[in-house]
Amino acid sequence: MTGLRIVPVEGLPEIAEGDDLAALVTAAIELADGDVLVVAQKAVSKAEGRVVALDEIDPSATAQEIAGADGRDPRQVEAILGEARRIVRRRGGLVIAETRHGFVCASAGVDASNAPAPGQLVLLPLDPDTSARRLRERLRELAGRDVGVLITDSFGRAWRQGTTDVAIGAAGVPVLLDLTGERDPVGYELHATVIAVADEIAGAAELVMGKTRGIPAAVVRGLDLQGDGAANDLVMPRERDLFR
Amino acid sequence: MTGLRIVPVEGLPEIAEGDDLAALVTAAIELADGDVLVVAQKAVSKAEGRVVALDEIDPSATAQEIAGADGRDPRQVEAILGEARRIVRRRGGLVIAETRHGFVCASAGVDASNAPAPGQLVLLPLDPDTSARRLRERLRELAGRDVGVLITDSFGRAWRQGTTDVAIGAAGVPVLLDLTGERDPVGYELHATVIAVADEIAGAAELVMGKTRGIPAAVVRGLDLQGDGAANDLVMPRERDLFR
Repeated sequence: MTGLRIVPVEGLPEIAEGDDLAALVTAAIELADGDVLVVAQKAVSKAEGRVVALDEIDPSATAQEIAGADGRDPRQVEAILGEARRIVRRRGGLVIAETRHGFVCASAGVDASNAPAPGQLVLLPLDPDTSARRLRERLRELAGRDVGVLITDSFGRAWRQGTTDVAIGAAGVPVLLDLTGERDPVGYELHATVIAVADEIAGAAELVMGKTRGIPAAVVRGLDLQGDGAANDLVMPRERDLFR
Repeated sequence: MTGLRIVPVEGLPEIAEGDDLAALVTAAIELADGDVLVVAQKAVSKAEGRVVALDEIDPSATAQEIAGADGRDPRQVEAILGEARRIVRRRGGLVIAETRHGFVCASAGVDASNAPAPGQLVLLPLDPDTSARRLRERLRELAGRDVGVLITDSFGRAWRQGTTDVAIGAAGVPVLLDLTGERDPVGYELHATVIAVADEIAGAAELVMGKTRGIPAAVVRGLDLQGDGAANDLVMPRERDLFR
């Protein structure tokens, strides 16, 4: 077969703290060597207990001031500030922040949707690349397959409307494909041509997952990619970043 | 079948000005109703004659000054300035520009790779949404199928390394999926959740196309999307843009 297949992992239960994601996935779908399993960050965060209750948050004066700008919940803003290394842009209560991992995204990845229960917030995994590696190893243990893993989240973009899913954790999958020095069909040598394949795979998987359908994972089959990478490599180094 | 299939359109010839892309595609692959045909911008631009020869460009003083910063070809910089409505960021000869269409990308979309011949530059189509619509209509004429069309290019992103393919032209495909007001599985109402599905489809298709393999098109089958849109809708309106 040439080309790719992207298959939703259907029938997963609601994920709770302590759940063995690899066991749930292998019970739901048959994996093959070379598959890439894409898992939404929410599922990983919930399994890892990265959930806080609004009731337990005591908002600082700064959080109250930012939230007041357009009537947001100051406790949610406090959670965002707690996850942020730096605020990149702000308009009223909308905060674009740099996370502890270096990702730049809305609300530092803090979100109330798809939380286990009302009144709770889900935070990004502390170290999504390690989460991905652990999941990959456990899949090998349980299914005996060599499967790449991406952990993904929906990020907005500068200058473009809408979010696309991108990789925030990776294991057993290359994240950047560097074509520098290769030649196009007429012999022109490519310069500085680096493709963020992990983000393209993440977005492709989102097309079959869906935030309202409770499908937090998908399998991408047929990728012709060699190598390994970490989603951390997708963060633009500060000295090369024209926009931070 | 649940899920998606993404199939490269193999065996297309090198595209030249005046070529009937729809005829070439329908000769190469069988299309089905609901398919989305994704075509790389380079192929569309070459068919439309959006190619300039460096030899015919007389660089301005500004182009010479920018190019001099790190030894770029001032004629190429002149072509970039000609396509740019505004320079968004610059580091040496690297220019991030807003194109006439409102897209923000490196070199205003001007590129020497995959040009018909050495010494030539390919420019973005003048109106990629119209190009997509024309291609869609011609596919219906030739194949009798209702096929969506995306025209794509590789754009860099703020804060993240590497390019992903995004939609710069669209017809017969929704580009933004607005989930605002829908509810997640635990009943939480989604706010401002808009997914740039056209960009996710564009990136997915890139995974089977490849800049060095001479495959400028792919077919995405199995998308469960209703509606129509224009890639122009993906441009963040200036008044909402925190980064322009």
